[in-house]
Formats: sequence, structure tokens, C-alpha cells
Amino acid sequence: MRILGIDPGIAIVGFGVVDKEGSQLRPVQYGSIQTEAGLPVPLRLKQIFEAMQSLLETYRPDEMSVEKLFFNKNVTTAFTVGQARGVIILAAELAGVPVYEYTPMQVKQAVTGYGGAEKKQIQEMTKLLLRLKEVPKPDDVADALGIAITHAQFRAFISISEGVQK
Amino acid sequence: MRILGIDPGIAIVGFGVVDKEGSQLRPVQYGSIQTEAGLPVPLRLKQIFEAMQSLLETYRPDEMSVEKLFFNKNVTTAFTVGQARGVIILAAELAGVPVYEYTPMQVKQAVTGYGGAEKKQIQEMTKLLLRLKEVPKPDDVADALGIAITHAQFRAFISISEGVQK
Repeated sequence: MRILGIDPGIAIVGFGVVDKEGSQLRPVQYGSIQTEAGLPVPLRLKQIFEAMQSLLETYRPDEMSVEKLFFNKNVTTAFTVGQARGVIILAAELAGVPVYEYTPMQVKQAVTGYGGAEKKQIQEMTKLLLRLKEVPKPDDVADALGIAITHAQFRAFISISEGVQK
Repeated sequence: MRILGIDPGIAIVGFGVVDKEGSQLRPVQYGSIQTEAGLPVPLRLKQIFEAMQSLLETYRPDEMSVEKLFFNKNVTTAFTVGQARGVIILAAELAGVPVYEYTPMQVKQAVTGYGGAEKKQIQEMTKLLLRLKEVPKPDDVADALGIAITHAQFRAFISISEGVQK
């Protein structure tokens, strides 16, 4: 099964494509969609939407996972990230790709086995689990891979416990 | 010039199409896009996006105006409304329709001439300015018309002071 993990944002959208074969995880591709700060927001949203369509078309993931909102950020940030997240989720829905959401706590739990893990520990575990030579930069890319791994772990659990197959 | 005013939301998107001919404002159509609370968010975003595409296709507005974020709402609300607002703005951008944003203060100022006006006063003035028999319901529809009027007023000002023509 192929999973597309997304760390949403207006300036940087981190993405990570991970294949799960049995209990093995294999990184297929990862990187970021970036938009220029000076551009009008409608244009930046269009750029994100079209880049998402291109990613979905190129890698044809079975499912997509996205980080849930951060309660610790302020209202303006939540609003701006929300707008970007809206077009990202729309792109997946239009492509017929189911979207799953995970809280930062669930990501910590799934990647490190410990809900109180530090960001740096998550990134190191992400590197180890995917056998990468180094932690991908910027953070958004490493986070996107972590979110993809999270879905791979939770998905396996769903398959076993409820017989859901993909 | 034809203006599409939008009051964004995930459950209800108010819309109002207003024609400005000289100093006259004429209501063309108004109403709401509604999505069911029980449906998954990706599907609701798709429904909003497709309804917006249909509105843009049917009424072919020259410009769109949307209310700016509300700082008084909580982070979760801002995030949810932000996602809906993202796909609404995307639809306009993909249709080549420029998007303008106004704060609630600017709407009050434009519609009633007074920045401290109550919501009810804005709705009554909207009714008067568009020669409607009654205030449209729900509030989101009246608000969308108010946002369209706001753009009509500000746009006229831009045309005179800076020679911008449409």
C-alpha cells in the first residue's frame, strides 16, 4: 500500500510518499511544495492545489494522511494553514484518495512508541525506520514522512483488528 | 460590473451576486451552499468547491469579495472556516476571478457609513440598498450581500482615485 503523508502550510507543504510492503516501509519520494511569501494568497493556494494534483497523479497513493490542527498556534496561523489544508484535502478528495488525520500525539506514539517524544527524536526514528542516510530538510519534509509512517502503523492495526483490506 | 460576495463557512456558505451599474446596485441572485454536519470534511470541501465552480460558471462575476478572518473566534473554528475559505478562494482563482478581502469593520463602514454598526443595522441597510422586501435568511446570506456591497463601494473609490477600470 502506498501512503502520501502531508505536513500542510501556506509557505511550505512537506510531502512524503511511503510504500508499506508487509511490515517493511520503503521511502519512494519526499520533498516540499514551496510558495513565495510575496505572492497573493489565491495564487499561492492555486500553486499548492496544482502541485498536489501533480503529486497525486505521479505517485498514485492509495491513501493520504495529514497532521491535525495544532491547538498551540494562534488564530491567524490556524486560519492561514487551514486555507492551505483545505485545498490539499480537496485535491485528494477529487482524486478519490481517502484522507486520514492524526494528532501530533498520535504521530509521536506511532513513530517513537512514546507520546511525549521530542521533535528531534521523531525525526531520528523516521530516518531509522525508512533507512535514510540523514534527516530530510526542511523539518516539514521529515514531518510529512513521520505522518506517512503514522498512517502505515495505524492502518496495519486497523487491518488486523477490523479486517479492513486495501 | 458584477460582484460575487461570499460569507465563508463549512456548514453554510452565504453568497450574493450584485450588479453595479453606475451608482445603482442590483441584486441578481443570493442564497447559500449548505453541507451536512455528519459528512466527512473532505467530501464537504468538495461539495463547496463544486458548488462554487457552478456559481462562478452560472453568474460569471467580474470580481469576488470575501470577509476577512474573525479574530474573536477560537482556533478550531478559524481552522475549520479556513479550510472552507481555502477551497472557495481556489475556485475563484481557477476561474480567473480576482478576490478581494474586507474586515468586518470595513463592511460596517461601507454598508452603514458607521464602523460601530450592529449586525442588525447592516442587514437593514443591505435590504434598503438592494431594495429587497425583507432581510434574506439565514444571516450568512445577508452577510454575503453586505460583503458584495462593500466591494462595490470600495471598488468605486478605487476607480475614481486611481483610475483602475474593469
